[in-house]
Parts: sequence; C-alpha cells; structure tokens
Amino acid sequence: MSTFGTLFRVTTYGESHCASVGAIVDGVPPGLELSAQDIQVQLSRRRPGQSNLTTPRDEKDLVHIQSGIERGVTLGTPIAVLVKNEDQRPKDYSETDLYPRPSHADYTYLLKYGVKASSGGGRSSARETIGRVAAGAIAEKYLKQVHGIEVVAFVSSVGKINLPSYNQRPLGDDDENDDDKSEILSPEFIKLLKTVTREEVDKYTTRCPHSETSDKMTKRIIRAKEAQDSIGGTVTCVIRNVPVGLGEPCFDKFEATLAHAMLSIPATKAFEVGSGFRGTEIPGSRHNDMFISKPDGSLGTATNWSGGIQGGITNGEDIYFRVGFKSPATISQAQATAQYDGSAGSLAAKGRHDPCVVPRAVPIVEAMASIVLMDQLLIQNSRSATASLLPPITTLPPTMILPPKPATLLNGHQ
Amino acid sequence: MSTFGTLFRVTTYGESHCASVGAIVDGVPPGLELSAQDIQVQLSRRRPGQSNLTTPRDEKDLVHIQSGIERGVTLGTPIAVLVKNEDQRPKDYSETDLYPRPSHADYTYLLKYGVKASSGGGRSSARETIGRVAAGAIAEKYLKQVHGIEVVAFVSSVGKINLPSYNQRPLGDDDENDDDKSEILSPEFIKLLKTVTREEVDKYTTRCPHSETSDKMTKRIIRAKEAQDSIGGTVTCVIRNVPVGLGEPCFDKFEATLAHAMLSIPATKAFEVGSGFRGTEIPGSRHNDMFISKPDGSLGTATNWSGGIQGGITNGEDIYFRVGFKSPATISQAQATAQYDGSAGSLAAKGRHDPCVVPRAVPIVEAMASIVLMDQLLIQNSRSATASLLPPITTLPPTMILPPKPATLLNGHQ
Amino acid sequence: MSTFGTLFRVTTYGESHCASVGAIVDGVPPGLELSAQDIQVQLSRRRPGQSNLTTPRDEKDLVHIQSGIERGVTLGTPIAVLVKNEDQRPKDYSETDLYPRPSHADYTYLLKYGVKASSGGGRSSARETIGRVAAGAIAEKYLKQVHGIEVVAFVSSVGKINLPSYNQRPLGDDDENDDDKSEILSPEFIKLLKTVTREEVDKYTTRCPHSETSDKMTKRIIRAKEAQDSIGGTVTCVIRNVPVGLGEPCFDKFEATLAHAMLSIPATKAFEVGSGFRGTEIPGSRHNDMFISKPDGSLGTATNWSGGIQGGITNGEDIYFRVGFKSPATISQAQATAQYDGSAGSLAAKGRHDPCVVPRAVPIVEAMASIVLMDQLLIQNSRSATASLLPPITTLPPTMILPPKPATLLNGHQ
Amino acid sequence: MSTFGTLFRVTTYGESHCASVGAIVDGVPPGLELSAQDIQVQLSRRRPGQSNLTTPRDEKDLVHIQSGIERGVTLGTPIAVLVKNEDQRPKDYSETDLYPRPSHADYTYLLKYGVKASSGGGRSSARETIGRVAAGAIAEKYLKQVHGIEVVAFVSSVGKINLPSYNQRPLGDDDENDDDKSEILSPEFIKLLKTVTREEVDKYTTRCPHSETSDKMTKRIIRAKEAQDSIGGTVTCVIRNVPVGLGEPCFDKFEATLAHAMLSIPATKAFEVGSGFRGTEIPGSRHNDMFISKPDGSLGTATNWSGGIQGGITNGEDIYFRVGFKSPATISQAQATAQYDGSAGSLAAKGRHDPCVVPRAVPIVEAMASIVLMDQLLIQNSRSATASLLPPITTLPPTMILPPKPATLLNGHQ
Repeated sequence: MSTFGTLFRVTTYGESHCASVGAIVDGVPPGLELSAQDIQVQLSRRRPGQSNLTTPRDEKDLVHIQSGIERGVTLGTPIAVLVKNEDQRPKDYSETDLYPRPSHADYTYLLKYGVKASSGGGRSSARETIGRVAAGAIAEKYLKQVHGIEVVAFVSSVGKINLPSYNQRPLGDDDENDDDKSEILSPEFIKLLKTVTREEVDKYTTRCPHSETSDKMTKRIIRAKEAQDSIGGTVTCVIRNVPVGLGEPCFDKFEATLAHAMLSIPATKAFEVGSGFRGTEIPGSRHNDMFISKPDGSLGTATNWSGGIQGGITNGEDIYFRVGFKSPATISQAQATAQYDGSAGSLAAKGRHDPCVVPRAVPIVEAMASIVLMDQLLIQNSRSATASLLPPITTLPPTMILPPKPATLLNGHQ
Repeated sequence: MSTFGTLFRVTTYGESHCASVGAIVDGVPPGLELSAQDIQVQLSRRRPGQSNLTTPRDEKDLVHIQSGIERGVTLGTPIAVLVKNEDQRPKDYSETDLYPRPSHADYTYLLKYGVKASSGGGRSSARETIGRVAAGAIAEKYLKQVHGIEVVAFVSSVGKINLPSYNQRPLGDDDENDDDKSEILSPEFIKLLKTVTREEVDKYTTRCPHSETSDKMTKRIIRAKEAQDSIGGTVTCVIRNVPVGLGEPCFDKFEATLAHAMLSIPATKAFEVGSGFRGTEIPGSRHNDMFISKPDGSLGTATNWSGGIQGGITNGEDIYFRVGFKSPATISQAQATAQYDGSAGSLAAKGRHDPCVVPRAVPIVEAMASIVLMDQLLIQNSRSATASLLPPITTLPPTMILPPKPATLLNGHQ
Repeated sequence: MSTFGTLFRVTTYGESHCASVGAIVDGVPPGLELSAQDIQVQLSRRRPGQSNLTTPRDEKDLVHIQSGIERGVTLGTPIAVLVKNEDQRPKDYSETDLYPRPSHADYTYLLKYGVKASSGGGRSSARETIGRVAAGAIAEKYLKQVHGIEVVAFVSSVGKINLPSYNQRPLGDDDENDDDKSEILSPEFIKLLKTVTREEVDKYTTRCPHSETSDKMTKRIIRAKEAQDSIGGTVTCVIRNVPVGLGEPCFDKFEATLAHAMLSIPATKAFEVGSGFRGTEIPGSRHNDMFISKPDGSLGTATNWSGGIQGGITNGEDIYFRVGFKSPATISQAQATAQYDGSAGSLAAKGRHDPCVVPRAVPIVEAMASIVLMDQLLIQNSRSATASLLPPITTLPPTMILPPKPATLLNGHQ
Repeated sequence: MSTFGTLFRVTTYGESHCASVGAIVDGVPPGLELSAQDIQVQLSRRRPGQSNLTTPRDEKDLVHIQSGIERGVTLGTPIAVLVKNEDQRPKDYSETDLYPRPSHADYTYLLKYGVKASSGGGRSSARETIGRVAAGAIAEKYLKQVHGIEVVAFVSSVGKINLPSYNQRPLGDDDENDDDKSEILSPEFIKLLKTVTREEVDKYTTRCPHSETSDKMTKRIIRAKEAQDSIGGTVTCVIRNVPVGLGEPCFDKFEATLAHAMLSIPATKAFEVGSGFRGTEIPGSRHNDMFISKPDGSLGTATNWSGGIQGGITNGEDIYFRVGFKSPATISQAQATAQYDGSAGSLAAKGRHDPCVVPRAVPIVEAMASIVLMDQLLIQNSRSATASLLPPITTLPPTMILPPKPATLLNGHQ
C-alpha cells in the first residue's frame, strides 16, 4: 500500500493532476534541526526540466512543510510535506485515451481498481516519488549528522553504455571448465565507490561521474529523444560509514528491505547488491571476504564482495547496489497496439516525456536507501539500548558473546 | 523480523540446534482441503541428502501439523507446523569457533545481538527455510486449486554455465552507436517458461531441465566439491495463470514484495523480473509489450518483456524472475582470515556442506513466490469484493471505467 | 504511532499551531461517489464554536481534498485531506509556560520527546482528531451506501447526570446473596438504541437526545464554565445493520480494535461494550442471549446483552458501546501545582477551553467506529471472497459447516 | 489476526483439540537469562484444576521451549513455545452439536469461516491464552530484572461482591446539583494498589486479596456452580515502577494498546484506566493530578487519578486499570434456544466448565499488560537512544526543551 517502514514510516499520496502530492513522515527523531531547504535540495535534483536530457516541463516543486517542526527543530511528531501540482485540472479527453499505453500502468490500474485517473496510470506517475524524496532527505539529515553516513548514487549505464570500470556483468559460458580468474569488480570501480560525491555526480547532466562515458550517454539519450524513442539504464548507489548490525532477519534482512524499496520505484526491474549476479559465477574461495584486524581492534574485511551485508546484517563495510530501470514506456513514435475495446490501431503518445529516467532517478534511489537505513537503524537502536541494560552474560562460553565494547553498536562509526 | 505478509502472514522460528524449526501460518482460507502430505512433498524437495550434489546429511524433515486443520480441512485459524531437529544438542566447542567464517553470518549475528548461537549464524541457517517451504505449500494448494496457478522454479545457471537458451545477460559496450537488434530472450527460453513442469525439473539432480546443461552443471558442482570449494548460480521461476490486478502500489508493488521475499532467502544477492538488467539496454520501442485482443475479448500482450507486471500490478501474463545465489560461504579448504580477537590465522571449516545451494533453493523460491501471490491475492480480493457491491459509476467518461465484466477480477483466469 | 488500520489505513498529522492538520486515507474502495461535503458535514459537527457549551473559537475547519478523487469518484488511491490552522504562529512565551498543566500532556510529551511544541501537548491537541473525523466520514459513506449501516453516537451522561433510562452502572454490594433480578438495561434505553438518529441527537446542543436530561446537562456544563472548572461525561454509540462475521481473533477481536480506537481519542479513560461492567454482575443464565429463528431463516438473538459481538466476531445484532471522557484538564481556576523546575506555584490557564468535551466528541466516536468497521469489513470481505471460490466441503459432518448460503456474508444484511 | 505487537511481537496458534497450543515470541532482547521455569510459573497459575472454583480438568500444561534460547540465555531470535493438548482427538458428535451455545463463539465462528472446529468456538477456547501467558512471562522477566517493574493483578469483584475498599463505580443521579464531594478511590484501595503482591493474591483461591471478601466470593462462585450457572467479575491490575515516556500517540497511546490487549482476552467486555467511568463524574479541579517536586528533583503527582498515563504517555506513576469479564456462556442448566437450523429446543451443555473465570484470568491480564509494556518500551528505547546521539538543542526557548538529564529516559526508574 502507500506506507513503508516500521518505526520510520513514510506514507505518500497524490497523482499527476490532483491538488498536490506529498507525504506524512512518522517516527522522525525529536530534536533534529531541519529546514525546508534540507528537503528542497533533493527535490530540486529530482524535478523535471533540469537539462535537455529530461522532460522540459519546468515545475517548481517547492516543498511546504505542514507539521512536526517548530522554529527549525523536529518535535518527534509526524512531518507532513506537500508540493502543489502546477496543473491540477483533470486531463481533457483525447483520442489517445482510447489506448492503454503499452508497458504502462494505464491498463493494470484500470483492471485493478475498475476506475482510473484521467491522466492514466494514476499513482504510477513519477510525481508520486516527490513524497519519497522529501522523506529520504529527512532521514538523511539525521544519518549524516549523527553517523556521518554518506549515500551517493550515480548513473552506471545508459543502454549499452557502461562506466568503463564497471565490469559487473556476468560473463557466463566463456570459461566452463576453468575457475574464473577474471576480476570481480575493477580497481577503478572500487575506488569510485569509495570516493564519489554528489558534487562530482552533479557535474554531469547524465549524473554519470566519468566525463567520457557521460558524453557517450548524452549522445545516446539525445539519439533516443530524436527518434521519439526511449532508453533504460542502471543506477548504482553506495552507502558509506554504515553502522554495524542493521537488518532484521529472517524476512527483513537489510538487502531484502533494500530490494523492496528499490523495486517500488517506478520503472525498476532489477536489483543486485555487492557482486550481485556476477558474484554467482565466482567460487566461494575467491568470493569470500576474509576478515582482517582493523587499527581500532575491530574486524573488517579484506575485500567487500558481500556489499557490506552478511546474513542480512550490515558488517560496517560500504553497502553498494545497482538498480535497473527499463526504457520509459511512453514514447512519441507510433506503436501498433490495441485499444481498450480490443480494436487494433496505432498510438502516438502526445506531450513531452523523459527519454531516459536514470539521471532523475538518482535522488530517488538515494531517498529510498536513506529511508531503509533510518528504519533499520531505529529498530536496531531499540535492541541495542534495551539489551545494554541487562547485566553481562556470565554463563556462556566466550565464543558466544561479544567482547565488552557494545557501546559501539549505537555509535555506529567504523 | 520473523513475520512476512499482511493478510497471509507467515511467522517462522528456529535455529540449527534447537528442538525444532517451524512456522505459524495465519490467514489461510477456511474450507481448504489440506494434508500433511501436501506440505511434505515440497519439504522433501528442499531437504538435504537428495543427491551427491548436496550435503550428505539425511534428515527426515517430517512435518507435524499442530493446529488449524480438522479432518483434513482448514478452519481458517492459524496453522502451526514444526519439523524436529535431529541433532538438538548445542554444538560442542571447537577450535574453529575462534574464527568468524568469512562471508558468513557468524560475525554480524554476534555484533547485532551481542550473543550468538553455538552453531554460528543462528537464524541464517538453511533450516530456517523449512517454515517458509511449509507455508508456501499451503498457499500453493489454494492457488493451484482455485486459479490453476502454476509456480515452477528451475536452476538457470551454475557458475558460468547457463541454460544455452538463456540469453538474459546484459551485453553492454559492444554496440554503442546502433540500436540493439539482438534478441531479448531466445524463443527456446520463452518456450521453456511456458511449458516447464516440476516433474521435468525433478528429472535432474541439478534441477536444470536441460540434459546437456545439467550434465555440465553436475561436473561443475562436483569439481567445486572436490576442490573443497563452492559455486553459486541462479534460479529462474515462472508463475502461470496469474490473476490480473495483484500488487499494491506504491510501496507494495508486486515486484517489490517479490524482490523482498526473494532477497530474504539466505545467500541471495540479486533479483530481476521480466527482461531485467538486459531490458535496460533495449529501446522502449522494442521493449514495450504491445496490446492485442484475445479470443475472450480481454487484452493481452504480444510480447512479455514486462514479466507479467506493469506499474507494479499483474496484467495476467506469466510472471518470470531470476534470483542470484552466491557461492556458499562455508568451504572446507583453508582460508587465511582473522580470529574474533583480531589475530591472523587459517580456518578450514569442518563438517559437510552444500557445494552449491541452487538445486535445493528451487522449492524455497517457489514457496516465497506462492506466499507473495497468496498475500497479494487476499488483498486484491478484498478490494474487488468490496467495490463490487457499489452501484455502477455513471458520472465518469467511459475511458475511465472498466467495462462491466468485473467479476473476472475474482476468478482471475485470463 | 500515527497510522491506524490494516487495509483501511488512516495516517494523521498536525499540531495546534502548525500550517495545517489532516490525514492520508489509504484503502478506500474505488468507484465510490464522494464529495468534500460528505466530509465537511461531520467536521462541522466536530468544530468548536457551535454553541455556548463549547469553546467560543469559531474556526471554519474547511476540508481541502488533495488527491484520490476525480470528478467526484474515488480512484482507490490514497485520499489526502487537510484543514488549515487559522493561527499558524508558534505560541508566544508566557508565564504559564513555566508550568506543566496538571493531568495534561505537556509534561509527558516533554519527557517522551525531550522537546515539545510551544503550544504544549502537541499532538494531544483536539485538532488532531480532524483527520480522524474526515477519514471516518469516508468510511461511513461506503458503509451507509452499501450495507445501510448506521452509526449514531450521543451523550449519555455529563457528570452525574445520566439519561434516566440508562441503568448501566454496576449495582454491586446491595444484593450479595440473591441472584440479581434487576433489569440489565431499561426497555426505554433499548428502544433508544434501536431508533435514535443523528438528526434527533443534533436537536440538542448537549447531543443528549432527551429533552429533560439535556436541560440538566446544559445547566451542569454552564455551572462548570462559570466556576472556571470542567466536567466529564460519557458517549454511547450504536451501530445498526452490521454485517455478520467481522472481527479478527484472537488479537483483533472486534471489541478489541474498537476499544483501541476509542481509547486513542484524547481524554478517554473507559470503554465498555454491550452490558459492560454491569453485565459482570449478572449470572450466565440471565445474561446469555438465546438464539431465535428469524423470518428469513437465519438466527438472531432474543436479547442482545453481548452488544452484537460474540467471540470477538459480530453476530449481526446492533453493536453498542460506551466511552468515558474525563473532565478536561485545562481549567481557568488557579491550581496549586509545581513548575517544570520543581518550584511550587499556582497556575491559572489562560484562553478559552471546552468546559465539557462530550458534545463535540460525538462525531469523533462515530468516526473511529466507522474506521474500525471499514477495516474489519475489508479483511472479512477478503476471506469470504477467497473462500467462496473453493468447492463445497464434503468431508465434514454437517454440524461443522455453514449451510450453503454463504453469499450473505458479503451482503451483510441480516 | 493472531499477531500482536510491533517490536515485541507475539503470534499464537491452537484450538482445544489440536496437537498443541503455543506461540512464537519475536523481538526478545538478546542476552536475557530465561528458563522454562520462568514461563511455567505463570502457566501453572493459569491452568485449570487449581481449586474447587475452577474447572476440574487437571491438565499439566507443561511448556516446551523450541528455539531462541541456548544454555539458558536468549539469542534475540524468536522463541517458540508449545504446550501439548492432552486430548487431541476431534470431539465426537453429540446431540448438543445441533445447538450453537448462546452467547458463545460457536455461531459467529461458523458464520465467519463457513466451517468450525468440532469443539465449537475454535480459537475462542481459553487454551489460546496459553501462548499469551508464556509470552508475557518472557516480557516480564526483562521488565522485572532491568526496571524493577511489578505487574500484579487481582480479582476486584465477583458478581455484586466487591472489594469493600473499592468504590470505583460511578454514582450518578444522586447528586445532580452539587459538586461531588465523595472520594474517588478509597485510601484503603489506593494502599492496596501500592502494596499488593502476587504472593498475597495467591493466598486466596479467588485471587481476591481480602479475606472476608474472598470468602463471600467463594460462596458466590459455589452457588453459581451448584445452580449449574455462572457468574462474572472484574480483575484489577497495577503496574509499578513504570518508565516514563511509554505510549505512541496518536493511535497507539498507552491506554489504547492496553485496552486493545485486554479486550482481546476471551469473555472481556469492559476496560477502564485510572479513575475510569467514575472519574467522568468528578470536576476537573478535583480530578486533575497536581504536580509536586520529588526528592530526586523530578516531578511527580500528588494524586494519581490519571492512572499513570497523561496524553497517552506514561508519567512514571503507577498504572492501574480494571477489566470486566462477563459470566461464562457455557452453563449446564437447560437453556431454551434455537438449533442451527432454526428449530426451537433446549440445550444443556455437557462437560465441566468454569463457573467463574476471573481467578484464572489474573495471570492472563498480567501477561497482556507485560506484552504491551515490553512493546512500548522497545519503541521508546529506540527513540530515546536515537535522539540521544543528536547534539543539544540550542535554538529553542528553555520551556520547550527537557533539561539535560535525558539518560533517565532509558533507566526508567522514577
């Protein structure tokens, strides 16, 4: 439904042509300094009209905070945010309304609800993600301030154009009898994951932080646009300075809720964490992340093919994952497809649409990642705080007990 | 946590060395004929010791139904099931307990809870999935009987060995300037999706329903076993005869809950639905599934790259998806890794372990898919039944309303 | 937290002095005709300034629908509603801010969150209930239209002044050795439950539908007002034409969720359903509701001390229950109480406050009852619709099976 | 449904004649010392056959822990418990099966599910509460050990026989024109709330800790038994040493979840907290609990008519509440009531039944109270721990901020 999360709980509302879109964000920690500007930054990265690669509609998307904050400080009560829809009139009837757009939500919404918004896919509109981005920005403010957590997403591919350092595709078939000796991820890509910043990402209209590749992607997107066609791509996201111990087995493993969050973003079809599909080809002896002692006495891992998660629980290494977005369904070229009544015909969608959504998807992926992190952090903080009041365990062998430094669980820094 | 689902709600319990593992399954439709044998069939497909490709422990894994059924008929009350652990003694102390197993849950469980089971990863044990398989079998009994739904999973790759017809890997890089002309999925693979049965799958110990590929996979797994190593793979699952209208936007889109369910299975790292990552390379004009009129007057699609889901809602076409399982972390060869106390050392895991989990993962993937289906079906049935009692809508233009055949929503057959 | 319900899910936001208060209502059946006026009616019954018995602030409380409705028909997507706060400035500092108001939420909000709204109790403000009333009106529109359900609440007592026919107080002590022969509820009161309408209730500013008693209550409230004091009371609510089979054992029995809903209304301290506390004094032989055959062949009960619920499940008889509201904590007369810093002092609250909340509580009680009904109806409709597709049960003795008229489960009328 | 709680989550299963009844308890703090005996103590207080006042069936009700504990210490994973049903055979057909028992769940279960257990009311069986009592005992172990919380319930009335000191019934009608001068609760009763222990309660087979009253109650229950009739009563429960800040507005106020929990116990019809219904008669000036400074510098209240909860949040004072249990529906004397098929007849229930359930209900009320406390404590611990990592607020006036001693939030002791 339209609510996500257990303790950090986001509920969104809104379609394309209603009065506004927005969200209620419940479970925000009290006493956090928060301004509209903290939210606006990410909304502005999401909004259309940022470059010639996205839809030219220039909507302001100004956030209006309704509740939960007084004199710039959160009260711990629900924060409601709304962004007005510039065009609130129900869409006029047009001939294209006779057609369900192929691979779009028009048809399934109608079948599911028996009625649909005049704008077609209703809540499948990209405008629904505004509430998510706002909620993510709230979560992120806390995560950054308290744990120094960095959530950075970027475009890793558009069509067949990949970041050159990004060798994550499964190879398959080319080496059946010998163990795989090829690298899992290139050193360049690993370095990128460790260092990339939003500032670096935003230097490129594609949001692919690699100049040469970004140029190719720009051309590819413009080519799609000129052909009245569209093209897909992938977004990769890295989370740094992750507290250890997040994730709630068995069903709410960290990667499970992360996958849930990502696949709930419109147009997504695929998700992988750490070495992902590529990792399925690598023998355990090469894929396992060996433990090493870190300067502070805790354990880290020499490699990080696990993507920062083991057994569904964060281990403090960077989390990185990739999300696949299909080519947008709405295209202007004529498509031979049936009308609602079954009669054959040809549909050419009117209006202006994104030929490629991945540049604008970057802040949405970051937002959903922040929401998942915040919710899992709240749950684990409950457990840690509650268990910390118990007396030390004296009846178990030492191998079954954490050495007495449990306070780090709450601080979370690695 | 350990509960999954909204109306069809599964709660599991149990570790490796406790008295039993099992589940409480709430929300089962009343009046369903159900026997222990219905559940046992899938548990036996999951259990170890089925072939030389899996761990040789031969556990019986007999299910004991505790409640919710009388004289072979469900009462609509919670069904509790349990399977006894054959070895219920806490594990003895051994030298290897000094080491957290690399890429295993030993370390993260200890950090999260401050205490861990003597058997190591506790709930990350594969035995936890017994409760899921039992719950899935209950769901499946209904889905099959009422809607003729077929849920069939099979092994689609082991290491680099893929079903030959399975061309789902993204190509990337090789064709930057021209639009992609290669096929998205091969006709052979599409045919396999339409026709494969569990009986066919079970003819092969690998559970890969293609004789030549299965032989190669067998050799690959045996090679890993002999090298005291392990190897990963992928499981593909198809769901046929899916009712239309399932999936709850915006956060509980069908693919989102499916991804959640799949990534909650131990050792999973990747998920894709329909054309998945491969589809991100294909322009919209080729990727869109055109609507066609079906003999019964309803709409279908000419292709099915969407994998049966559009806008997060099922459209009645087959759902198919792929899940990536990493190579098992526990291997017998020596690994240079740190002890809990940070001192360097070498760990060689004792005992017998699966060198490759994908053959046994097949019924687990089927179970989680059935659980998601059943839960989403229950939610949509509520909406359909509730809305069906309202008078027909007379104030909206015809393009916004479903033609008056809504009863098919409940029957679900396409 | 701020979300209530499983399938019909209400999330509210807002404090006294923020921009607006409101709610997102998820799970509304699609295809329902709904206008702002449907909601405004109940909001206007709730708003202050209706009579000299309530706070003189005359707020307009106009509802603004943000989403989920197009051309007067619900889309099945979330309906967001908001009502602007007339005075959105944070409250100015005043001397009384040094005091936590006795029996008010000022102190506990501060302790819980570490920070509090300048207006004091934050979300404990009566304005929070605006979102509930709006959500309840949406639910009620469906319940009335499809099932003819009537939800009518009225004031049954103010201070010690009771409806004369209302003999529900436990007697105790006066008859220890003989079985109780006194009536459980008077015939007049039972008749009132069967017939009272909102129109009748609204004839009285007290919302007590009995002229003589209402006059006494009016005097009692005015006396409290003149004494700068306050007085409590009770609201009784009846629900007629209830579908059978609602309520989800074991934890979400109908009366349990109803009690949850009622005790979540500000200032409530007590709840009883059917014969309630009074019923605990009556022997089973007199208290049991004997079954009788109804003209349509179904079973009804000769009496209804159970209040329409048996085993946590509705039986089709009228549901009636009573909710106790304490005397409002904020009073203008001086109170000898400590300041936040512990120093003794005297607090006289400024501003204008309701001397008695029960007249305005009537639509809030109705709203929460409607929300509970709608949510439970959606869950049971799922079960009924799902089970109805199974073949008839042939293997159980007839006493274990419902005779073949299950369609009535959905229609609900008795 | 059959799951209760957000972070401390209890899921129960089981009917009268199935293999076993039990529960899965999720969210238990790790590192807690816990034995089967900790649970058995409360199960034995609940079981039948304890005295001549309860049903003579002497069931052993031995608890079997299945998971989540190793060497006497909780692992933080789900704890499954089960208690075998001594008589697991489906009930034989008998003539009384033609009748739905009046005011029992037989009829509503059949209508809701379309099928019912041969034993009649299925999950409405008192045996369902075994899982609750086990879960409550687990919660209580933590609450007692860490916070010194005491949860003590006792029988406060049977039929019309009340604890003499218990003057909580509303007076009504007898004093319309003068303000109420009578006491709200007697000093004796207040003293009892402050001091009563389980040991004291268990000295009486009635579980009413007042010798003379207990004797009267005993006679009253025996009289009901001899008359083949039944009688109801009330259970009062006090919780001492409650941490401040528990309760989650607006819907999950402490008293709201408490009411939900209590009304989910079989046979309950009424709930009141603090002064309850009686309090609605008392003007605010007398009913308000004035703040006073406590020796440790924190604030307490001079009186406690609020029952330890203000604005839905605990204030550290004792919580006390009362639950009304109706007279058991199953009685042996003949009742003139219709058969399932509508034909008139006379039913005399066979078997042996509790003539009065309140003595055995005492540990069930304590268990549900402990479950609510534990769940709310886990949620508030999350908030406190999360907010405690934020820097001090410097931008708000002092009256909006908690003075810098927030650590007491976690310790909870007043």
